[in-house]
Amino acid sequence: MVETMIDKNKNIVDGKALAEELKKDLKREVETLQKPLRLAVIFIGASPASGSFIKRKQAFGKAIGVEVNIFKPDAEIYMSRAKLRFYLADIVHEKANTGIIIQLPLPDELSSRTQYFLDSIVPEKDVDVLSSHAYGKFAMGQFVIQPPLVGTVEVILKQYSIDLRRKNIVMIGAGGKLVGRPICNWFLSQDLAFDAIMKDVSPEDFREKIKRADVIISGVGKAGLVSADMVKDGVVALDAGTSGTSGELKGDLDPEIAKKALLFTPVPGGIGPLTVAMLFKNLITLAKQK
Amino acid sequence: MVETMIDKNKNIVDGKALAEELKKDLKREVETLQKPLRLAVIFIGASPASGSFIKRKQAFGKAIGVEVNIFKPDAEIYMSRAKLRFYLADIVHEKANTGIIIQLPLPDELSSRTQYFLDSIVPEKDVDVLSSHAYGKFAMGQFVIQPPLVGTVEVILKQYSIDLRRKNIVMIGAGGKLVGRPICNWFLSQDLAFDAIMKDVSPEDFREKIKRADVIISGVGKAGLVSADMVKDGVVALDAGTSGTSGELKGDLDPEIAKKALLFTPVPGGIGPLTVAMLFKNLITLAKQK
Repeated sequence: MVETMIDKNKNIVDGKALAEELKKDLKREVETLQKPLRLAVIFIGASPASGSFIKRKQAFGKAIGVEVNIFKPDAEIYMSRAKLRFYLADIVHEKANTGIIIQLPLPDELSSRTQYFLDSIVPEKDVDVLSSHAYGKFAMGQFVIQPPLVGTVEVILKQYSIDLRRKNIVMIGAGGKLVGRPICNWFLSQDLAFDAIMKDVSPEDFREKIKRADVIISGVGKAGLVSADMVKDGVVALDAGTSGTSGELKGDLDPEIAKKALLFTPVPGGIGPLTVAMLFKNLITLAKQK
Repeated sequence: MVETMIDKNKNIVDGKALAEELKKDLKREVETLQKPLRLAVIFIGASPASGSFIKRKQAFGKAIGVEVNIFKPDAEIYMSRAKLRFYLADIVHEKANTGIIIQLPLPDELSSRTQYFLDSIVPEKDVDVLSSHAYGKFAMGQFVIQPPLVGTVEVILKQYSIDLRRKNIVMIGAGGKLVGRPICNWFLSQDLAFDAIMKDVSPEDFREKIKRADVIISGVGKAGLVSADMVKDGVVALDAGTSGTSGELKGDLDPEIAKKALLFTPVPGGIGPLTVAMLFKNLITLAKQK
């Protein structure tokens, strides 16, 4: 089914290397733009994993000439829905903040209101495309940027000349707001047929559908959810699911799949570094619109 | 696979009868609300089909005590993008208009800008849930109403006690903005697995997937796209595709499917009348929010 043949030694996507390539382009774009750019990162709570993700964003920003400011509200503020909403509004409406992200996940006490807080970001600054408004514009084909994960998948497929038309595509964890839904909406907007599997699918259905798949994208966050014996030879397997066990980041797809795959993105070092680059690409694209 | 057994004589959904039931409930709700409600229908161009759809909305509104006003801009206005946008803004911001719809399709000359014009409707009045903003709120689970078609499918499934969990669901024409995308986003928000087929799918893939389906929803607009020999016995077949040939409305699903189906919605008289009722249900729900 997959027409492109790729050297088996080069079938593992080096997300870091691709992100470095993008970094050079973006640095040049920032220089040309001659406008001060600033990403405001709102960090609520104290998750160590979030802290390390934010450090990566700071480093990337620094490398391309974009200021990255961390806003860390006290518990006194973030434990009050009204106070947090005001706090967010101030940051969103500050002109110097050209892009805004709220680092996810929010602390447990706030997680049921995640979308409510995300909705305080205006589309013109919503580089993650996670507010309802920005997301709707993306889903209806009315937005200049797309969710970083969608951009990442596009970059990888383009880099390896993989065409999704007439492929058997399976999205695992399709209901997830960060991975599944944006990817599915991207398929819908591209008129690409796909099979949407939810994270709680029955094992039999799961196996049958995965076995048929030419392309698998997974975003569940369950280490080793898909093993090598479950996929067919020559599969394109993109892993956007991450789960952390004792500080070590693991993906949904067993690394052994790389031996059978036409293309495979590892965790860590696959999709992750590229989404950071795409975030800054979005920041620059939105700044150009003004 | 389908656990509910339904009398073969009652397996054809009578959309008109269900809409009449809803009409009574809505009339009572409007009376209780004691607020003047008005649906503004913007009718651009002169499509006879649109004219007849609008008449049905007027009749429904009249029956439940909701004023329905038709706004029909001259070509001089609607042929200018700026003028039309101003014209729409006036109607949208008129306080007396509690709900707004733009009757689709737009004339050919404007059709590529359909979403741009729909985006002039504010979410609080967007009873069709077709603006990017309202649509994003719906897709992210942040909206009190849902697209009329989604509400219609829910009403039918509830009426016949059909549970979609663990069913093989196929959405035909998944990329369409009026039917496929809202339905797919509803599945995603409900964590329901589904198979998304596009209108241009290859005939073999098409046949294979349709044959396996426990539930088929179609929204292509191609008369007789699915024939009775293609579906399995006991299928739930919901037809949201309409195409008109010489004034006669036809669905995507061959009427012969009714003989094999557990449940079947005919065209005309199935989903159509119910979506009109759901439109007014949305109008009332939004009015209650204020």
